[in-house]
Formats: sequence, structure tokens, C-alpha cells
Amino acid sequence: MQALVDRILKDGKNLGGGILKVDSFINHQVDPELMDACGKEFARRFARVGATRVLTAEISGIAPALMAARHLRLPVVYARKTKPITMPDAVYLTVAPSHTKGVAVELIVSPEYLSPGERVLIIDDFLASGATILGLVRLTQAAGAQIVGIGALIEKSFEGGRQALSYLKIPIESLVVIKNMGNGKIEFE
Amino acid sequence: MQALVDRILKDGKNLGGGILKVDSFINHQVDPELMDACGKEFARRFARVGATRVLTAEISGIAPALMAARHLRLPVVYARKTKPITMPDAVYLTVAPSHTKGVAVELIVSPEYLSPGERVLIIDDFLASGATILGLVRLTQAAGAQIVGIGALIEKSFEGGRQALSYLKIPIESLVVIKNMGNGKIEFE
Repeated sequence: MQALVDRILKDGKNLGGGILKVDSFINHQVDPELMDACGKEFARRFARVGATRVLTAEISGIAPALMAARHLRLPVVYARKTKPITMPDAVYLTVAPSHTKGVAVELIVSPEYLSPGERVLIIDDFLASGATILGLVRLTQAAGAQIVGIGALIEKSFEGGRQALSYLKIPIESLVVIKNMGNGKIEFE
Repeated sequence: MQALVDRILKDGKNLGGGILKVDSFINHQVDPELMDACGKEFARRFARVGATRVLTAEISGIAPALMAARHLRLPVVYARKTKPITMPDAVYLTVAPSHTKGVAVELIVSPEYLSPGERVLIIDDFLASGATILGLVRLTQAAGAQIVGIGALIEKSFEGGRQALSYLKIPIESLVVIKNMGNGKIEFE
């Protein structure tokens, strides 16, 4: 998606170690118009997978997933990293290592909003190692629901996430793919 | 806002102790169409305050703030509760007690996205005691920026947040106001 490539080239920062800083338009400050355009593009790419729910992980997945869900006219569920007091005692919980935090985080979904028979489209900001998305996959499977697609704003293809998810045999769509971040570069596929 | 009143009456749950569960359409599962309508209503009410940025706190403020920002055509910044590695060392940080978590949480904003001279519209999901919003006010003031309005989806007027914020002498707009949650009721003003 050219608008996202252009924005990454303009405002993204390669911090080294494979870390792409997109805090000025995705992860801390958000550009709603760009996110809406990305949501529209996700909706176009996943128009025919028959999703009944969009699933993401707090925090930075919320903006793109919400906009995708808006264009698909579906509810969106975000997995929580801490269990709020409004959540029932029995929940789906898994643990995923966080690339940018350097620690393992819990991902928690209430069975109230993820039921057997649902067709789940997972949307997140990054597809890197795939660890967070694999956590969302486990939650979906624990609920007896079916994963019908995976979408990410930005894929870092050199971190192997797509291969880690390939066993699912479902469509994986990234709006931009970065193949190399060595030597301070940001090189797109 | 009648659509939000109706939805709270239909799907909201009074868990006692002043806790309103809105996990099926705001806080865990999100209804994008309803959030978009709320964002549009915020934009209408704050059309003339001259905001240059929308500010909220992760996590549950993101959806309404993003939609308000979309309709106002402004960037939105969400204060982080943990400092990601992409953030610079020097940040604005304050501590706010969390009603639903029962502990104090940090609210952190990078100076990159909150500058002197900005006119800040604060949007959050709840206006209860006002503690989180007062935290966002302190961050804004620390940055030398000006607060021009405060909006919340749901105000619980019996918790005194509006009084706590009244010294700011700026418009405070809640899309619905709940005046009483005693005896399992949800009573609107």
C-alpha cells in the first residue's frame, strides 16, 4: 500500500536491531485518516473470507483493527494484557513473548466475545516473528473458533513470522513488507 | 446521546460498587459503528474549540479518541502506561490512580508529540472521579500546551469528576451522564 510505504519513508525511524519506530503515526501518535485508509484496504483484501469478528491485541493493534472492522461492519475484540475486574473468572489466556518489550505478556480474551463457530480475522500493527499473532491464534483455537485471515500493517519479512504462520493455510496480508533493515536502511519488497 | 443510552440499557451491566461493565461494545469488544457515531458527536460538540490534537490514555480511550480525531481531522496521541523502547529517555510522566484496576498507573507522553502551543482536546471513555483525565491535564500542562476541551463517552456524575475538573474553566462534554447506580440500577440524567 503506497500511502503507508510513503509515510514510513517520511516519518519512520530505523532504530537498529530490527526496531522500526512508527510512533508518530501508528504507535503513540496515530494518524486517523491513514489508519482509516489502511482499514479500508484490509476490508478490500479480506472481503471474501466470511469473517464474523476481528481480533487484535492491545495496545497498538487497536487502531488498525478498529478501522478494518468499521469497513467490514464487524465487531472487534482486543485481547487484554491484564485482566480487568469487569471480566469473568474463567477466560482464555495465553502467553506471548513481546519483541519490543523484551518480556512475555499475557493475552486474555473473555469467552463472552469469542465463541465456537466464529470466523476470526486477526489484525495487528506488525507481523515480525509472529509471536503475538500466534498467541491470538491459540486464543481463537481455545475458543473453538476458526481463523480465516491474518492482516498486518507492516511485515518485517526477515523475522520469519509468515513462515511461522504458514501451517494455518489461510490468507496472510501485509499492507507493506520490509525485507531489510540492516545498516540503517528501510528496504521494501 | 440517545444511541449510547440505548446501548448501555441493552448491553451495559451494573456490577455494583459503581462499576459499569461495557465490555461488549466499548472496553474489550468494540462496536466500530457506535464508536464512529460517538466520534462524530464529539467532533460536533468541539467543532469550535480550535483543537490541534486529541489526547487520550491507553487502552480504552483509544477507540473513542481515534474516532473523534477522525471526524475533527486531527492527530490523536495516546498516553502510554509503560514506556516502549521506541520512546526517548526524557518524557512527560505522571501517576494516576486507576479506579478499575485498584492501583496507580503511570501515564507517559513523548515530548515529540505534545509541544508548547498545542491546543489539546482530551477524550476518554469514562469521566468518573476524573483521576485519569487530571493525569492527562498534568501531562498537557507539563508540555506547555493548552487544554481546550474534555470529552467522555460516559460520565458517572455521582463520582465528582466534573467538579474536580471545573477549575480548568473549559467545556466538558459527556455523551451520556449516569447519576445513580445504586441498587443495581443505571439511572441517566
